[in-house]
Amino acid sequence: MQFGHFDDDAREYVVTTPHTPYPWINYLGSEQFFSLISHQAGGYSFYRDAKMRRLTRYRYNNIPTDAGGRYLYVNDGGDVWTPSWMPVKADLDHFETRHGMGYTSITGERNGLRVATTVLVPLGENAEVQKVVVTNVSDAPKSVSLFSYVEFCLWNASDDQTNYQRNLSIGEVEVEERVPSGGSAIYHRTEYRERRNHYAVFAVNEPADGFDTDRDSFVGGPYASLAEAAVPRAGASTNSVASGWYPIGSHSTRLELAPGESHELVYVLGYEENDDELKWADDAHQVVNKSGAHALLERFATPAAVDAALARLKDYWTDLLSTFSVTSTDPKLDRMVNVWNQYQCMVTFNMSRSASFFETGIGRGMGFRDSNQDLLGFVHLVPERARERIIDIASTQFADGSAYHQYQPLTKRGNNDVGSGFNDDPLWLIAGVDGYLKETGDLSILDEPVPFDNEVGTEVPLFEHLTRSFQFTVNHLGPHGLPLIGRADWNDCLNLNAFSTEPGESFQTTENKTDGVAESVFIAAQLVLYGEAYATLAERRGLGDVATAARTAVAQVREAILAHGWDGEWFLRAYDYFGNPVGTDASPEGKIWIEPQGFAVMAGVGVERGEDGVSTATSPATRALDSVGELLGTPHGLVLQHPAYTTYRIELGEVSTYPPGYKENGGIFCHNNPWVIIAETVVGRGDRAFDYYKRITPAYREAISDVHKLEPYVYAQMIAGKEAVRTGEAKNSWLTGTAAWNFVAVSQYLLGVRPDHDGLVVDPQIGPEVPSYTVTRVARGATYEIEVTNSGARGARGRLVVDGAPIEGNLVPYAPAGSVVKVAVTL
Amino acid sequence: MQFGHFDDDAREYVVTTPHTPYPWINYLGSEQFFSLISHQAGGYSFYRDAKMRRLTRYRYNNIPTDAGGRYLYVNDGGDVWTPSWMPVKADLDHFETRHGMGYTSITGERNGLRVATTVLVPLGENAEVQKVVVTNVSDAPKSVSLFSYVEFCLWNASDDQTNYQRNLSIGEVEVEERVPSGGSAIYHRTEYRERRNHYAVFAVNEPADGFDTDRDSFVGGPYASLAEAAVPRAGASTNSVASGWYPIGSHSTRLELAPGESHELVYVLGYEENDDELKWADDAHQVVNKSGAHALLERFATPAAVDAALARLKDYWTDLLSTFSVTSTDPKLDRMVNVWNQYQCMVTFNMSRSASFFETGIGRGMGFRDSNQDLLGFVHLVPERARERIIDIASTQFADGSAYHQYQPLTKRGNNDVGSGFNDDPLWLIAGVDGYLKETGDLSILDEPVPFDNEVGTEVPLFEHLTRSFQFTVNHLGPHGLPLIGRADWNDCLNLNAFSTEPGESFQTTENKTDGVAESVFIAAQLVLYGEAYATLAERRGLGDVATAARTAVAQVREAILAHGWDGEWFLRAYDYFGNPVGTDASPEGKIWIEPQGFAVMAGVGVERGEDGVSTATSPATRALDSVGELLGTPHGLVLQHPAYTTYRIELGEVSTYPPGYKENGGIFCHNNPWVIIAETVVGRGDRAFDYYKRITPAYREAISDVHKLEPYVYAQMIAGKEAVRTGEAKNSWLTGTAAWNFVAVSQYLLGVRPDHDGLVVDPQIGPEVPSYTVTRVARGATYEIEVTNSGARGARGRLVVDGAPIEGNLVPYAPAGSVVKVAVTL
Repeated sequence: MQFGHFDDDAREYVVTTPHTPYPWINYLGSEQFFSLISHQAGGYSFYRDAKMRRLTRYRYNNIPTDAGGRYLYVNDGGDVWTPSWMPVKADLDHFETRHGMGYTSITGERNGLRVATTVLVPLGENAEVQKVVVTNVSDAPKSVSLFSYVEFCLWNASDDQTNYQRNLSIGEVEVEERVPSGGSAIYHRTEYRERRNHYAVFAVNEPADGFDTDRDSFVGGPYASLAEAAVPRAGASTNSVASGWYPIGSHSTRLELAPGESHELVYVLGYEENDDELKWADDAHQVVNKSGAHALLERFATPAAVDAALARLKDYWTDLLSTFSVTSTDPKLDRMVNVWNQYQCMVTFNMSRSASFFETGIGRGMGFRDSNQDLLGFVHLVPERARERIIDIASTQFADGSAYHQYQPLTKRGNNDVGSGFNDDPLWLIAGVDGYLKETGDLSILDEPVPFDNEVGTEVPLFEHLTRSFQFTVNHLGPHGLPLIGRADWNDCLNLNAFSTEPGESFQTTENKTDGVAESVFIAAQLVLYGEAYATLAERRGLGDVATAARTAVAQVREAILAHGWDGEWFLRAYDYFGNPVGTDASPEGKIWIEPQGFAVMAGVGVERGEDGVSTATSPATRALDSVGELLGTPHGLVLQHPAYTTYRIELGEVSTYPPGYKENGGIFCHNNPWVIIAETVVGRGDRAFDYYKRITPAYREAISDVHKLEPYVYAQMIAGKEAVRTGEAKNSWLTGTAAWNFVAVSQYLLGVRPDHDGLVVDPQIGPEVPSYTVTRVARGATYEIEVTNSGARGARGRLVVDGAPIEGNLVPYAPAGSVVKVAVTL
Repeated sequence: MQFGHFDDDAREYVVTTPHTPYPWINYLGSEQFFSLISHQAGGYSFYRDAKMRRLTRYRYNNIPTDAGGRYLYVNDGGDVWTPSWMPVKADLDHFETRHGMGYTSITGERNGLRVATTVLVPLGENAEVQKVVVTNVSDAPKSVSLFSYVEFCLWNASDDQTNYQRNLSIGEVEVEERVPSGGSAIYHRTEYRERRNHYAVFAVNEPADGFDTDRDSFVGGPYASLAEAAVPRAGASTNSVASGWYPIGSHSTRLELAPGESHELVYVLGYEENDDELKWADDAHQVVNKSGAHALLERFATPAAVDAALARLKDYWTDLLSTFSVTSTDPKLDRMVNVWNQYQCMVTFNMSRSASFFETGIGRGMGFRDSNQDLLGFVHLVPERARERIIDIASTQFADGSAYHQYQPLTKRGNNDVGSGFNDDPLWLIAGVDGYLKETGDLSILDEPVPFDNEVGTEVPLFEHLTRSFQFTVNHLGPHGLPLIGRADWNDCLNLNAFSTEPGESFQTTENKTDGVAESVFIAAQLVLYGEAYATLAERRGLGDVATAARTAVAQVREAILAHGWDGEWFLRAYDYFGNPVGTDASPEGKIWIEPQGFAVMAGVGVERGEDGVSTATSPATRALDSVGELLGTPHGLVLQHPAYTTYRIELGEVSTYPPGYKENGGIFCHNNPWVIIAETVVGRGDRAFDYYKRITPAYREAISDVHKLEPYVYAQMIAGKEAVRTGEAKNSWLTGTAAWNFVAVSQYLLGVRPDHDGLVVDPQIGPEVPSYTVTRVARGATYEIEVTNSGARGARGRLVVDGAPIEGNLVPYAPAGSVVKVAVTL
């Protein structure tokens, strides 16, 4: 069952009913100001940090869900409704929401009145801008009143929902019934009187007929709902001025519309800062200096200005998405690769794990591990921002190579609340830098001076950070020669040293035992993969000895994996605190785990390629992947481990706290599915890889949206696994490493176009279902047009003809910027 | 304008309309299990700790306010409504909520169906119990379906509203359609599979016709509100079993009622713990051992059992309130003294500042300062619990006499998140212990071994803690011989060493400068008052030298106040970091502050009694109090300082962050009004004291409930002051030191019956408006019947006749337990 459809030409998903199983959202904003917006206009806005600079209030897990957003109430001759359906929920004759690249359009029609709203955060602006077109599509004249509505958040979104004994006394606003550009504006200035130098403005581009800034006045007292809001029903604003309690912004506009007539309005919600010396407009320091807001409103004083901003935004995305595109026989593949997967990579890059409809934006900073992985799917879009992010991340590393697990986006400093000790973290820095270098060739980054723990004076070249990452790992090996796991590895929930008995205690922050020998086969595989990448970089810096030593260490760990990390039909997951294996057939539960199978084979461990180019059936790699397919496979993707744990296993930690089939306990934790997809291409089985790809990729799941529940255009972190009560139901969409890794898997391994240091590797491994396709790839300024004719045979490797000349191997050397390279591939 | 009335005989406040300006609430529970319940059944329940053991979910600051509670939906032949009005909000033919002592009854009637619900937490039980009586008051038979509703919280109320990426996957329930006692039960067991050994049960005492445990199933999908709930409208449960998302509890019951027929049901919401070895009912550890819940449900299997529990609860309160009661010519005075003020003191003792409709229960522990003061109004009710609390508090003190500002109720350990450095904290321990000793004479408490910072092995006699408190203060004096203020004194918001520039930074936790000389006149006055109390205790322990030394130190500080803490017409408030005076006429704002005026005079500083018994007009005490009346007085009480600060004063801290007239910035911060009331009795002006008492005391404000907004039966922390936009509007009701201090003021100083070490002091100072009254006071087992004939003349002191014999002075020596002492007082 579907609730909409893709409009591929427009790069939009069209939601055709308000009644989706869960709010389906979009992100607005590209740089500093961001908004979340659902298909029914729910969501909120913030400047840079969703916790510390929240402009509008949102209530997660409310009843109804998604009650709170930028709303426009219509009073059409006494009939009150909202074009976004929520919150009034009056029946609509027509409803359509189009989520595009950084904008969303919502159209609702009722009784011959059509209201179309387009919302975006214009490039370069710290504001959400709405253009509203109200059209009388009936045969009779109409008298219509419009009432806008936003509810202000008192800036710190966490304090805002906890500290009422203070917060209900501090709300302050200012109202300008006429601003210089001609409209009306409301200013939210809570705490501006003291330490804040920032305020919010909510404005309409025409003189309003009235306003409200006090929620109770607008809604009609404490017991009225947004659906029942009194002011729209009364048809007139009360011109209320908030003092404490709950500041809101609302303007009313009366329209007389002849049949067929339209009227356009612009609403702006903006964030402005003033320098301390320019904070005030008056000597008594009572009136906010609003010059910044006035200039903003001037820039968006007309609907045409919004149209122009939207056009610029669309051009921006056309440009971004031209870096990688595919034309194949499979429209689902094309729309995911060309549009939605890349778009999600941009959003995850911007948001890390902070703000979605599952992440409240108040709990988590930028993850060291997360952000490095997110880079892998983002670096081709805006390499300069990737570079900046790498420096930010590396600056939080400790001198011993270990890392804060998270850092704060506003301060860019490590987050002491979560701390350190996740022993996979350091190696991800190598992964991120390696991805950046292969995309850009910008070796200068390795010489960039980068401090430890943000301490001025400790700067060393970035390459030294990679060395510390590598050395930290090889210096922390356990008795089997495998890396010690520390607090956890990639799987935050595999806590082998925690032994937590305290209800509700966080496994991420509880004190861990330090005297154990818990080792991670996953980190071992990670070391093999990124240790080799590190050695290559060392070599390219002329540090042959360093490279050799690194490769020796890597080889030892590779041997350790095969010697001590192999269970017989698959790779072990770990050794626990006591030295007992985790992820072995000898266990009744948690016999096999997905992470080491995917990652070890990605790293080439256990791969024994036969003459047909496929790893032999008896090779550890193939046996591990066969076991994955057999034991972890479901129609909805690959579960994390099998069987799920039915009871709490204190020696394993959080993983066993989830009900079977959910999250890390036997859920389809999508982030690691692409590792297996890549691994299958490594062993030469593109057909299996593409099969796995389709199982979790949202466009292929669109037809079962009633089961999947979440957006059919972006990945979710998790889909409930086979032991779950609600198998196939997704949770936690949008902000997940799944996006980056799937883009790596599909673009670099299935479609097989991957940047390397000296050129593009072209190595399609997608199986027979996609017999031909063309990839256009811009890399280092040159454009590669790659036409693939694909037998899909297992183990087949493409024969390449570059600009008419056959070449050996699969590396297409980088061409000068500006050139166009034609590559024909046959396999 | 009123929204109800007092029923003095029943000790109930009767709310007669759902449309109060704010939810008016009550507290259920006396020991470990507590519920908040509004007049429309909103609120939530918890076991011991409102953050860590929350049973049901509540959303603060929702739209509508107060949407979430224990609800009962009625489907009467297709007409769906809720007797509590919320959440369906259907018009009712009759509505009445009665908030009593630990119970609340809500009755709603519509179309000839009357539903009366009585809710209580029975003594000794960890459960909220509801008795529901459904009566057909119409002339025709009725077919009625009832649907109960509670929404479970996933135990940690803070995590519950932030961590959705985990929480939406972990919800688990069990359902028993028939429990041994005959009813039906739903068990909320989220995280029981792992580290929790506790679960919740929600049950009805008859076999239900159906159940729901999945919110979306009950409500009707994600976009339905509680008002629209689908199951009651459909008239049938769906028997849904929650897995993740949002677990709820709901049972349905069909009733056929003849005209005039009633049916009674019992609902129980309980908390149960199991020992680890008894956690499970099965070997596979999948089924909760429910024996505790079964026993609970057995105990409340009948409506008669609830009636009996309610009767016991009423007896319990009759007994408690018999300790102090007054019969006067002023019914408002009587109802506050006899019922509501004492009741609020019990609630504040139980809750500290944790959970009200303004305090979310997740932010604050037990305050060192708060709890000691709360004791002053509570100790006469249950001295044994006061004793336990004193030991808990003192155990968190540091060895140098300083104190954690808060401690955690579950662990009883100091709260490192807030830390230390509030230099008034130590002296409050002397206040609390002094109050306990005067009430009980239990000197053994001073020998009780009590550790520092809860560290085993550091125990010293409690008296030594008092010594450390005293010495800490006298060892931290500033250049004027006044105590250094540290992070703040009683006024948390007067932060003289903070100099915070960071938006949103907490003044309570930000780093403070330590090199300044900021001194507090308030702490100086506190030292005079409680230093003398300490000296008296030392004397009574035979430590004459200690007493003498203490009195010498006190005398020096007393002199310092008069020499350096006096501005000319009132006491200064403080010296700031730079040594400049705070609270001086030379300042344009914040000229005069209330705290030192009240406290210094309470301590006798500047009192120069004339022949008429009144402090002379020229005495500092009188001048200070006259200034208070003139500059701080409003019809709604005394504001904290005058004029309020119009701009941020970085050298003063949080106090200037509030808009003028709110909270500590010129708000009527009710906590300190009783200090002035007491001070006025000290200088012999009972008429002024009683006037101030009436201004803030809720029963006297009942007639302006539309202005006051909050409950007319309990004190609020704050009433908006004269500069405020909404003057007279109260905020933060229930949990405030106002309750304890007002009870001290009215019982010990206005009515003038106060326990001392060797007897009851009887010293009425209430002015002429209360010409006669009788106080019955039980103290140390004896009953004192005190009849007062009161001229109300200023300075007049009572002449006492005890059991027929006139005595000198005003001390009635304690009589043997069991005796009845008659005291006649004339003044």
